[in-house]
Amino acid sequence: MGTRWALLVEYEGTGFAGWQRQTNGPSIQAAIEEALGRLTEHPVRVLGAGRTDAAVHALGQVAAFTTEKPLRADNIVRGGNAYLPPQIRLRSARQVSPAFNPRREALGRLYRYRLAQGGVPPALERAVVTWTSSAVDWARVAEALAFLQGRHDFAAFRSSQCTARRTVLTLERAEVEVIPRGPDQECGVMAEFHFGCRSFLHNMVRMLVGAALEVGRKRLDLQKLETILQTGARAGVRFPTAPAHGLCLMSVRYPAQLGLWQG
Amino acid sequence: MGTRWALLVEYEGTGFAGWQRQTNGPSIQAAIEEALGRLTEHPVRVLGAGRTDAAVHALGQVAAFTTEKPLRADNIVRGGNAYLPPQIRLRSARQVSPAFNPRREALGRLYRYRLAQGGVPPALERAVVTWTSSAVDWARVAEALAFLQGRHDFAAFRSSQCTARRTVLTLERAEVEVIPRGPDQECGVMAEFHFGCRSFLHNMVRMLVGAALEVGRKRLDLQKLETILQTGARAGVRFPTAPAHGLCLMSVRYPAQLGLWQG
Repeated sequence: MGTRWALLVEYEGTGFAGWQRQTNGPSIQAAIEEALGRLTEHPVRVLGAGRTDAAVHALGQVAAFTTEKPLRADNIVRGGNAYLPPQIRLRSARQVSPAFNPRREALGRLYRYRLAQGGVPPALERAVVTWTSSAVDWARVAEALAFLQGRHDFAAFRSSQCTARRTVLTLERAEVEVIPRGPDQECGVMAEFHFGCRSFLHNMVRMLVGAALEVGRKRLDLQKLETILQTGARAGVRFPTAPAHGLCLMSVRYPAQLGLWQG
Repeated sequence: MGTRWALLVEYEGTGFAGWQRQTNGPSIQAAIEEALGRLTEHPVRVLGAGRTDAAVHALGQVAAFTTEKPLRADNIVRGGNAYLPPQIRLRSARQVSPAFNPRREALGRLYRYRLAQGGVPPALERAVVTWTSSAVDWARVAEALAFLQGRHDFAAFRSSQCTARRTVLTLERAEVEVIPRGPDQECGVMAEFHFGCRSFLHNMVRMLVGAALEVGRKRLDLQKLETILQTGARAGVRFPTAPAHGLCLMSVRYPAQLGLWQG
């Protein structure tokens, strides 16, 4: 049987081909499996709550693995981190029931998307913030997000590789905070989007950001957005998928009785 | 004569030997001088408001240079950035009087210092946030900072290389904001220190952070800090200089009539 552990994981996705183990580049999953394999001295399979894409970051990814080796939570955190590159940190480990599945048992996920608008591309946080030079009416963006919030068919907001069976979802949170980058107006603003949903479709957050920005750029209006949500099809309406590196998986929420981190 | 320009500059200091041109590694100053030299097609000398150390960052460094070449502000920003690495961005350019000296005319500088305490070292912002595992009483840190604020002899808070003639300074702002890193207490906190002063001594901010943290760790008390401030000597009291990469020059303030950025 062994003991099953849940892990709270932080990573900078730059240079990784994403969470999931794959052949075309290093993955976060493979790096953690290798580190835990060295710690436990047996092959380890790690399951994550969310399959973040290449260059996407996480502050609160949740993953799970099973080991026969008797270990304490702090052994796992310290020992695992000793074998991991600095871009990946195990933040915490908690014992869970042998059948724990971090993906299926999740009640909600929270994502953040950061974007600088106007001024010049940021130098300091360029790995975690995307940039647009085009003028954006942020009141219109907020309107679009309020409109997207709630229960809709998000079939138009997923990539062609998405394998989810259900596309009708309740988007619990869709908000944006906008603050000046300072010191002057010409320097533009920093926008932080927040999205919360039980589960997201593939590329959904980046497409929501892309569509909301198109509304803010006055290239898309709420009526067309409504049609897209009602029909589940883009029907010739084009909006970009926002670049990956502005996205960060903030937290994954579980039933309180599991005793996991309260995201 | 030529035209003198003030520049607002952002950079990630990682991998640079500091602001100032030197022989032991690449400097921000040399990179900007080279980029502007290519743009103006003549050798350029750039003067900065603050000589940040190796690995120290800036969101609002101010620098100045003179050129004979007729250029508009947006030519300088776009053209300069085209020749700069992505770690350095010119954010804005403004024409100033031919004698403008960004160092001497500055009325104040604002620095930020970011430190994660407890939990594990951050993965995502590891280039701009330092980390300590030791327990810190943040109320004591805040007390120490309130104590350091005001007019004192900061002679004990400068490196041996510091060449400033006056060490009696008015520290206008010395504060710390502490927020949970979340999602749980075991994950520690994120502390953001803010310091404002007309000018700082070499390594002063990092030593102020180091001393305030020692008070928070209960290895130093306010009475000893008072003695250090009164005598201008450490008198055997030891406190560390906080690591460079948590430090960021946020803004430099100038007389309003110069028409520069209002940091």
